[in-house]
Amino acid sequence: MTTNVSAYAAPAANAPLERTTVPRRAVGEHDVLIEIKFAGICHSDIHQARDGWGEGIFPMVPGHEIAGVVTEVGAGVTRFTAGDRVGVGCFVDSCRECEYCRQGLEQYCTQGMTGTYNALDRNGEPTYGGYSTHIVVDENYTVRIPDALALDEAAPLLCAGITLYSPLSHWKAGPGKNVAVVGLGGLGHMGVKIAHALGAEVTVLSQSLRKQEDGLKLGADHYYATSDPKTFEKLAGTFDLIISTVSAPLDFGAYLALLKTDGALVNVGAPEEPISLNLFSVIGGRKTLAGSMIGGIAETQEMLDFCAEHGLGAEIELIRADQINEAYERVLASDVRYRFVIDAASI
Amino acid sequence: MTTNVSAYAAPAANAPLERTTVPRRAVGEHDVLIEIKFAGICHSDIHQARDGWGEGIFPMVPGHEIAGVVTEVGAGVTRFTAGDRVGVGCFVDSCRECEYCRQGLEQYCTQGMTGTYNALDRNGEPTYGGYSTHIVVDENYTVRIPDALALDEAAPLLCAGITLYSPLSHWKAGPGKNVAVVGLGGLGHMGVKIAHALGAEVTVLSQSLRKQEDGLKLGADHYYATSDPKTFEKLAGTFDLIISTVSAPLDFGAYLALLKTDGALVNVGAPEEPISLNLFSVIGGRKTLAGSMIGGIAETQEMLDFCAEHGLGAEIELIRADQINEAYERVLASDVRYRFVIDAASI
Repeated sequence: MTTNVSAYAAPAANAPLERTTVPRRAVGEHDVLIEIKFAGICHSDIHQARDGWGEGIFPMVPGHEIAGVVTEVGAGVTRFTAGDRVGVGCFVDSCRECEYCRQGLEQYCTQGMTGTYNALDRNGEPTYGGYSTHIVVDENYTVRIPDALALDEAAPLLCAGITLYSPLSHWKAGPGKNVAVVGLGGLGHMGVKIAHALGAEVTVLSQSLRKQEDGLKLGADHYYATSDPKTFEKLAGTFDLIISTVSAPLDFGAYLALLKTDGALVNVGAPEEPISLNLFSVIGGRKTLAGSMIGGIAETQEMLDFCAEHGLGAEIELIRADQINEAYERVLASDVRYRFVIDAASI
Repeated sequence: MTTNVSAYAAPAANAPLERTTVPRRAVGEHDVLIEIKFAGICHSDIHQARDGWGEGIFPMVPGHEIAGVVTEVGAGVTRFTAGDRVGVGCFVDSCRECEYCRQGLEQYCTQGMTGTYNALDRNGEPTYGGYSTHIVVDENYTVRIPDALALDEAAPLLCAGITLYSPLSHWKAGPGKNVAVVGLGGLGHMGVKIAHALGAEVTVLSQSLRKQEDGLKLGADHYYATSDPKTFEKLAGTFDLIISTVSAPLDFGAYLALLKTDGALVNVGAPEEPISLNLFSVIGGRKTLAGSMIGGIAETQEMLDFCAEHGLGAEIELIRADQINEAYERVLASDVRYRFVIDAASI
């Protein structure tokens, strides 16, 4: 039997979000009921609520950066008990059988992961995200938030944190590695913190020097403006790894030229439109242009444990639910340092 | 004191090649004098002789797939003696000091490798390639051709062989790996032979099925026509590694969709013009679009030893020097199975 819970939803594409109620399924054998405490606002929430990707399911309750506390568990749940501090990220299910699910790469499930919102679950019911007071999630798609992390600062780790941690880990950022992060926003600021904590030398490549002071405080060793052509001369051939968090259509040839031989430019943000690329940019220097999408459940837990160990919460601006629409405008104007987090008590 | 030797040269851009003489430097302390026996014709010879890359040095003696015999060695030479069967590939020098030269990645030398032809050497003298009777090369840029390889079939290995061996080795083609080779020409046919010998499951992706019988004989397990859209449906998500040897502007999104998660599409050929790429093609499935350029000296030796062990010579059509211009036309018409090799006795 479903229960209706309070939520903020976009009733239709491009309509402002407003308070409503949405159904949550009864707590199944392997489910946990989570009282949501905080939910981060990801840029992709705005895309989807405004139907930027074309296939929105409305009403839509965005939110895939969820931090809360377990209040009830199903009879078969073994990993959590009531009172546990937990998080939910970008997906709440996957096929569990394909080669990627079996490897803990559920985000690349061959049948497609089930998005935390704006998706249909395995029973064909729409999923509703974290801008809500409660959510019911299978324990296997729920992660533990260590005590050392404040729940509000932990929420954005569930998307922004893992989106950066996964490629930094996969492409082996660490001592002796020279890593650049392109863009200092919600994603980028976690990239700087995590890359620094991993022991890499970290450079921020940002359009301007406007956030330089922040970047250095967050752990960057260097900060350059990409609007200055001298940046590209000076840094040619110096990076092992560049992670681009931006959706602007960069001059990819210019960024690839900043890599050492065998270096990788990994995109976690991307422009909607195709980019133009001269393949000689990757042939000279055996370079890699790659992408990465969030991370699997086990890796998300590993990321949370790493962030707890190193004291890496997100930099947040806490808002009430009735400020969501205003916050969306500010995100679009890049006017947030560095993540809006909704206090679910206000929903 | 230089010595003039016979050669075939393009006297100017787009002019037919003709017999001439070019100077070879005196044999220096660390040099070997090589009597050239065979020289392969690489597609890039034609590009350069016709000034396709814009900065040709004329007269130009192409040829960077050289097989021959040492006839004289400098006083300081330790690795070769007269009578040794040797090869020279795409470069004859590099800075020897940068991080890449020190790692045996001379092809990515930060100061630029010295091309075997159409380049200026460290003394500012033009280099002349393998369409010639003799060449003087530093022993450190000379490799040994094992007795098990015929010299004529070994010549193309110095460019076509290493160009495929290096990425197949770097991206770990081998047992359990599903590898595709795009294009079955001079490069591609060596890719099929080497990938098969490495133990990978090998698929040829060619425009048509015209060379299917050859492909299977060379070691391919499967052969598909890329002109058939069903090929892309059927093979979606199946390859660990795709090596593209073609210079046609492929639909890179379609080829990336053929990769498994964590798969790589590596370009050793490339169109002159920029390609168009939607970055979501690499973000979903954490895929890599990369490039690779020939190989270092130590790796070239490793490749020759590997080819000798597995009996992998190139498939060649032996020609006289006076057939070079005609052969160029046939290469441009894809009418060669699979490499023209010039008999240097006819120069």
